[in-house]
Amino acid sequence: MPDRTKYVLDEREMPTAWYNVSPDLPKPLDPPLHPVTSEPMGPEDLAPLFPMGLIAQEVSQERYIDIPGEVLEIYKTYRPSPLVRAKNLEKALDTPAKIYFKYEGVSAAGSHKPNTAYAQAYYNKVEGTNKISTETGAGQWGSALAIACQHFDIECKVYMVRVSYEQKPYRRILMETYGASVTPSPSMETDAGKAVLADNPDSLGSLGIAISEAVEVALKNEDTHYSLGSVLNFVCLHQTVIGQEAITQMGVAEAEPDVVIGCVGGGSNFSGLAFPYYHRKKEEGLSTRFLAVEPKACPTLTAGDYRYDWGDEAKMAPQVVMYTLGHDFVPAGIHAGGLRYHGDAPMLSLLVKEGEIDAVALHQTEVFEGAVLFAQNEGILPAPEAAHAIQAAITEALDAKEKGEERTILFGLSGHGHFDLGAYDAYLKGELVDYDYAAGSRVEEE
Amino acid sequence: MPDRTKYVLDEREMPTAWYNVSPDLPKPLDPPLHPVTSEPMGPEDLAPLFPMGLIAQEVSQERYIDIPGEVLEIYKTYRPSPLVRAKNLEKALDTPAKIYFKYEGVSAAGSHKPNTAYAQAYYNKVEGTNKISTETGAGQWGSALAIACQHFDIECKVYMVRVSYEQKPYRRILMETYGASVTPSPSMETDAGKAVLADNPDSLGSLGIAISEAVEVALKNEDTHYSLGSVLNFVCLHQTVIGQEAITQMGVAEAEPDVVIGCVGGGSNFSGLAFPYYHRKKEEGLSTRFLAVEPKACPTLTAGDYRYDWGDEAKMAPQVVMYTLGHDFVPAGIHAGGLRYHGDAPMLSLLVKEGEIDAVALHQTEVFEGAVLFAQNEGILPAPEAAHAIQAAITEALDAKEKGEERTILFGLSGHGHFDLGAYDAYLKGELVDYDYAAGSRVEEE
Repeated sequence: MPDRTKYVLDEREMPTAWYNVSPDLPKPLDPPLHPVTSEPMGPEDLAPLFPMGLIAQEVSQERYIDIPGEVLEIYKTYRPSPLVRAKNLEKALDTPAKIYFKYEGVSAAGSHKPNTAYAQAYYNKVEGTNKISTETGAGQWGSALAIACQHFDIECKVYMVRVSYEQKPYRRILMETYGASVTPSPSMETDAGKAVLADNPDSLGSLGIAISEAVEVALKNEDTHYSLGSVLNFVCLHQTVIGQEAITQMGVAEAEPDVVIGCVGGGSNFSGLAFPYYHRKKEEGLSTRFLAVEPKACPTLTAGDYRYDWGDEAKMAPQVVMYTLGHDFVPAGIHAGGLRYHGDAPMLSLLVKEGEIDAVALHQTEVFEGAVLFAQNEGILPAPEAAHAIQAAITEALDAKEKGEERTILFGLSGHGHFDLGAYDAYLKGELVDYDYAAGSRVEEE
Repeated sequence: MPDRTKYVLDEREMPTAWYNVSPDLPKPLDPPLHPVTSEPMGPEDLAPLFPMGLIAQEVSQERYIDIPGEVLEIYKTYRPSPLVRAKNLEKALDTPAKIYFKYEGVSAAGSHKPNTAYAQAYYNKVEGTNKISTETGAGQWGSALAIACQHFDIECKVYMVRVSYEQKPYRRILMETYGASVTPSPSMETDAGKAVLADNPDSLGSLGIAISEAVEVALKNEDTHYSLGSVLNFVCLHQTVIGQEAITQMGVAEAEPDVVIGCVGGGSNFSGLAFPYYHRKKEEGLSTRFLAVEPKACPTLTAGDYRYDWGDEAKMAPQVVMYTLGHDFVPAGIHAGGLRYHGDAPMLSLLVKEGEIDAVALHQTEVFEGAVLFAQNEGILPAPEAAHAIQAAITEALDAKEKGEERTILFGLSGHGHFDLGAYDAYLKGELVDYDYAAGSRVEEE
């Protein structure tokens, strides 16, 4: 087994097709239902929101879908992303386990989000869309889409939850630097925003309201489409470049993961790493385990119901079958903002339901403990979201140590935490609060 | 010529020795003089501050100095850094020039600084140093040294200029996350700090005062050494991994730079990229040009005197021959904090004096214009320091266009700007102020 620290690939070794897990699912997905009529939706029902290129991917049963040349070209500015053996962390834990991580923080947006942002912007551009609207919480998705729209010369309109807009100006400035127009939500630009403000002029906003504003703009303007950064089948599809690269890199390392770990918000990051390995497991008859990690404050996979629910609070998005805490659930204000979603990607939900993927929920204090241990040993400062995967990997490594087992662990490090230092400060000062959905702390207490 | 976007190297292709330009200088460096007696200093005079391993490098005439295995190992966590062809920027400029950049922002500290921080921490560890003191302005050097000390299990004490400590908490938190102890300077922990505070209890501090505090702690405590992030010969030496890697990568690209560009504060970043190319020019009889880029608010190379001067405001550091604006010069408050140093590395200064390297000074408004153009086309958000090199590269590319010339441009992108978004905000709002040393705006006006 080669004893390297970092496994890099040349851009010519990048996958040229996305992997679609749909044909390999244990059973078919239930169809999405119309948000109002609850009738099954066809591709044409989605056309006001998305270009046909993406809608075709949403329902495709093809196992591999070619990545367009223009998307491949822009991927090459930051991909293939590195696979790193966390040797210093292994040493600190004194574990016989081998720990590898796939690092997506090397993109300009600092996370895996550009993998789908570039693809979505491309398909919109090809079909003549001049403008894309979207929502963002703390700004991770918004900044990825802003960069992608800039590249494909599309206007980008971002509705940013007001409390984040005011308290976290850095990602707002980042989006503006990439040419996006950022509006605090609720705003007076939409009926949805006006209605909220009429009721409460001081509203701090929520992701649900911001989605409603972005969707409304897309529905009312023919030249405008809507863009979403997770949950949908085509978003999970685009992220599979991560797992496919990892398989090539782990091959060079002559290492086969016993367990593949990732954090889950909407589910696209986890799916991107895990789905190609799920396919590999089936093909090669392996015994790979998969572990999805979520926050105890928003434990969709471990405490949610598996049923039809709306994708958004305002019931404007389609109803899909997924694990959900309810479309009107407002998670507590944990620092891993990207994991505060009431539902999960339907494809991932189905695989959890069928027992193919395990899930675990963690408190944010233990997550930050893992984050700091990782930063101090591997250098990289992880995003709070990604740190969920780190902490679960540490637990696996310590379990291997206790049992005296060799174990090969692969986890996804979905992004860096350069814009999350306020959260680290709170952790170092001992000021982090843990929220437990199961214990009833279901609403933000801060 | 291969048409790739990114040229990556395997860790096995990393240089295993640093390149020392000293034996290749057109004439010998003048000896450093004692800060108080003005007598030439020998290695033993530096021993209270630095370990002998580093002092030996400071005066070495060996062309290549092996990189210790433990330093190579930790380099592998982020090196080799990528060389990127800025295809999208070329397209935006519609230039026949080919633009390549070497990107050092992939390190955990986000800049080139860890290349020397790890080396300095290593040589200190080997000689039994348990504690290192240093100063930092906005925190770039301090965070690199904090990470390096953490790795080699050394206590790290950082005196951070008070105004930055209070106004820019993110890099302070970053240093603390990596286990460093950070004290706002001036402090009551040192005589130097007490003297300043006795005079002015509300002092905002300065780099000069912070250096005095860090040096005092090293001089007064036998187990403590001092560490400096630029200027010294051994710092420039450690940075030559950048240029050596670039030569290998440009070789794969089958490209020979006509001009090599970098920004200059103390000079180690520029030296790291340029010195290996300077050696190559001599060996191969090439006509490579070298362009050092500095701010008009602190134009040491273009408007300074070439003479002996102290390295610090408080005259506690040795006197060296360099381009200087005077040890008591306080540059205006431009956002490229890393370029606000009154002098320059003696090796770089000599090469400029001898006409081997050209220099140019830019205003920060034009620098940010280049930074935003670069970010919008290449994705990466550059640090304000690095953006000086970008703007000069753009000027070269436009000049090549005007003259209808092919030209191959290589510049160093020394770091990302994730902690500089306040500066971008000011630029986007049209609030940036330009300071011109030549026009007399020599003191911070904000």
